[in-house]
Amino acid sequence: MGLPKGTTERLRKIAGEKGVLTSPVDLLTYSYDGTTNWEAKPEVVVFPTTTDQVSEIMKLATQDVIPVTVRGAGTNVSGGSIPVLGGIVLCTTRMNRIIAINAANFSATAEVGVVLHDLNQELVKHRLFFPPDPQSFLAATLGGCVSENAGGPYAVKYGVFKHYLLGMRTVLPSGTIIDLGGKTMKNVTGYDLPQLICGSEGTLAVITQVTLRLLPLPQAHQTVLAVFDNVVTAGETVQRIFASGIMPAKIELMDNWLIQRIEEVTPLGLPLTAEAILLFELDGMSEAVKKETEGVVDCCKKTGAIDVRPARDANEAENFWTARRAGFSAIFGNAPTVLAEDVTVPINRIPELIGRIRRCARTYNLTIVIIGHAGDGNLHPAILTNRKDPAHYARAEKALDDIFAAALDLGGVLSGEHGIGLEKKRFLKQALPAEAIELLKEIKKVFDPKGILNPGKIW
Amino acid sequence: MGLPKGTTERLRKIAGEKGVLTSPVDLLTYSYDGTTNWEAKPEVVVFPTTTDQVSEIMKLATQDVIPVTVRGAGTNVSGGSIPVLGGIVLCTTRMNRIIAINAANFSATAEVGVVLHDLNQELVKHRLFFPPDPQSFLAATLGGCVSENAGGPYAVKYGVFKHYLLGMRTVLPSGTIIDLGGKTMKNVTGYDLPQLICGSEGTLAVITQVTLRLLPLPQAHQTVLAVFDNVVTAGETVQRIFASGIMPAKIELMDNWLIQRIEEVTPLGLPLTAEAILLFELDGMSEAVKKETEGVVDCCKKTGAIDVRPARDANEAENFWTARRAGFSAIFGNAPTVLAEDVTVPINRIPELIGRIRRCARTYNLTIVIIGHAGDGNLHPAILTNRKDPAHYARAEKALDDIFAAALDLGGVLSGEHGIGLEKKRFLKQALPAEAIELLKEIKKVFDPKGILNPGKIW
Repeated sequence: MGLPKGTTERLRKIAGEKGVLTSPVDLLTYSYDGTTNWEAKPEVVVFPTTTDQVSEIMKLATQDVIPVTVRGAGTNVSGGSIPVLGGIVLCTTRMNRIIAINAANFSATAEVGVVLHDLNQELVKHRLFFPPDPQSFLAATLGGCVSENAGGPYAVKYGVFKHYLLGMRTVLPSGTIIDLGGKTMKNVTGYDLPQLICGSEGTLAVITQVTLRLLPLPQAHQTVLAVFDNVVTAGETVQRIFASGIMPAKIELMDNWLIQRIEEVTPLGLPLTAEAILLFELDGMSEAVKKETEGVVDCCKKTGAIDVRPARDANEAENFWTARRAGFSAIFGNAPTVLAEDVTVPINRIPELIGRIRRCARTYNLTIVIIGHAGDGNLHPAILTNRKDPAHYARAEKALDDIFAAALDLGGVLSGEHGIGLEKKRFLKQALPAEAIELLKEIKKVFDPKGILNPGKIW
Repeated sequence: MGLPKGTTERLRKIAGEKGVLTSPVDLLTYSYDGTTNWEAKPEVVVFPTTTDQVSEIMKLATQDVIPVTVRGAGTNVSGGSIPVLGGIVLCTTRMNRIIAINAANFSATAEVGVVLHDLNQELVKHRLFFPPDPQSFLAATLGGCVSENAGGPYAVKYGVFKHYLLGMRTVLPSGTIIDLGGKTMKNVTGYDLPQLICGSEGTLAVITQVTLRLLPLPQAHQTVLAVFDNVVTAGETVQRIFASGIMPAKIELMDNWLIQRIEEVTPLGLPLTAEAILLFELDGMSEAVKKETEGVVDCCKKTGAIDVRPARDANEAENFWTARRAGFSAIFGNAPTVLAEDVTVPINRIPELIGRIRRCARTYNLTIVIIGHAGDGNLHPAILTNRKDPAHYARAEKALDDIFAAALDLGGVLSGEHGIGLEKKRFLKQALPAEAIELLKEIKKVFDPKGILNPGKIW
């Protein structure tokens, strides 16, 4: 569509010479997300360093009706940060100051470009931690995490981003700067706009700062690896552990395909025929962790795990978690295109969901890897395919249809932590009643009457 | 204003003969809330038993533009349930079925008229619990709690209602029935409308069912009572406990006035000159609770508590908590009018807030009792006054102004868990930027274009 004449110069005046990129290679760099499944180039990329600069950029964009797509590290995986209508990519990575850590109030205020891992590195000095842990935490920014309401393995015990969001500084499309929420966990002062903006995938307002609730760093951690010859048994084990009153911090599930990849890359001596492994983390007071570990081991043995290994020390625990990450990376190295889903069902329906996914894989003759958060109902079935092989990709898309249908059928949802973005737009009507979608659109208009903020997403 | 002719008959057709009240004494009964600080009679009270009936009632109200104020048990304390423009009070107390407890998914679905305590009585049979515990839990309904985003003592460790809200069935003012959210903790499928409706004080939609997240029942509990001759020392103790990595489930603070009332009503042998007591509850695995109790006792002694008493058994613990409730009841028995606030500040600012409240009491020559949740920054300063003594009440209102100003000044908020309702409307402009209030009003219009749902509240 082309930017109005002079836009780039005006952006340079706002964000400085180095704060604006326009070369073809730069534009290409900001044209895709963590999956490379979609591609659309912006016309300019701007890197503000202050909320005031963001406000100026938004005023300009509103005046000239230029689409603005906000982007953090671009680790998102449902297309949320793709500038489908071109225009401006507003990249927050230079707004990366931790403004305050108030240990006495268990809160921290930081700019949205702060990387999640960097925040936790600082917090550990105060014996604090911020639990939500999307597996992109080494690169993902706070702003992206809030916008997608990111979760991760820790959600089992600790919940997701929205549970830790106390307040935010935002810039409306009009350029108006508004502070919302506050610094306290208890706050009933008008509608909870921070919770509305959390998970809105960058479509309502530009977040520039967030205030987050923190927790004291747990004293002790223990990892336990358990191997199963049957995925249903693994599911039963999770239920038995919960029923015994134990709430692990993490419960990760990996399937046979991943076990094989792990043995290739970071061998742990796992039986190559095993159908599933569960990886648990217990945390808390040392005495409780010790007892809970015994409880988890006991439950695994009682349901018939073929091998149960509590990590002997921090090193071995780290090896187990490294293997998990290596397995996950292997997925993306094994196919030109990966459709990495995040359907979520009630926790006890996970074995059924796995059954349905496997049937899909057979029906469409596809490899669908299953990794996920068995403790909170959130699975990541990853369909290995190739966009450039139309016949194969068509089968993959059919499988996707079936997986979403299965999740809804089992009382679940399309997306647990990745968001709708571009990927799941066409499924939204199956997941939400038409009247609810209408409400979303009307709320969008309240915040963004000209529709310039991340257009083309969610619906 | 008077209802359109035939409204009562039409409501009887919807909710049955017994489901509609119109006698003067009945209307009076539904004219005030938990405080009796405000009074406004509805023209009719209707008790639907199904979502479909709620839908029919809302269609009727929309057609004839009749105000509808939704009410649960009426235990709210900021005027939220007062039908200031008359019209219909829609009382949810006959929608009181627990629909499903899914222990394997840590979730329960219940109608909004279910009393919080009744839910927990059922849950305990499944070794589950629902943490948020407003002190009206013996009567308060789930619907009221969600609408006010209620908290309570457990918030320190467990958070507030919104942190446990998974999904809801709602009826829009138009009568449209919509299911929002779901049954899973992870869910990013469009904007989070349940979180928007939570805490909206009945102004956006009528909630008829909620699905809540549950936790396993903690294995062990331990109560500790600590007495201080100085409230600043009590504040320091809380900070020292947090710094040691201990997260108590509850930390309640009571002032000298309450200590004196407790000794009158349920004597615990507390020194009558003590300035403050802290009441802790630790919960979790037995081993952890034992160790944390030692830690709390140690911190109290180190900061200079004049007496520290871990409850010897469940009976003594119950006595301590009964004393706390008796103290709270005594407040309302000691003055014709009580302004019971719920200002909330960053946890570490509590001693300063207490100092400011005391100065207020001296300046205006008032008794202001201080009870509150010292572990989450939420205090309940209660101003003892009398609406029928204009000079006294004017002083009380001035004190209220100063207390709200102090809370905002210390980085806090007007309301932690009671809501704005009628009481704090005139302070909202100090607490929220004008542009934020504008957004609230526009969002209200999206849900309720005719403005019939709980009119006259929040702003």
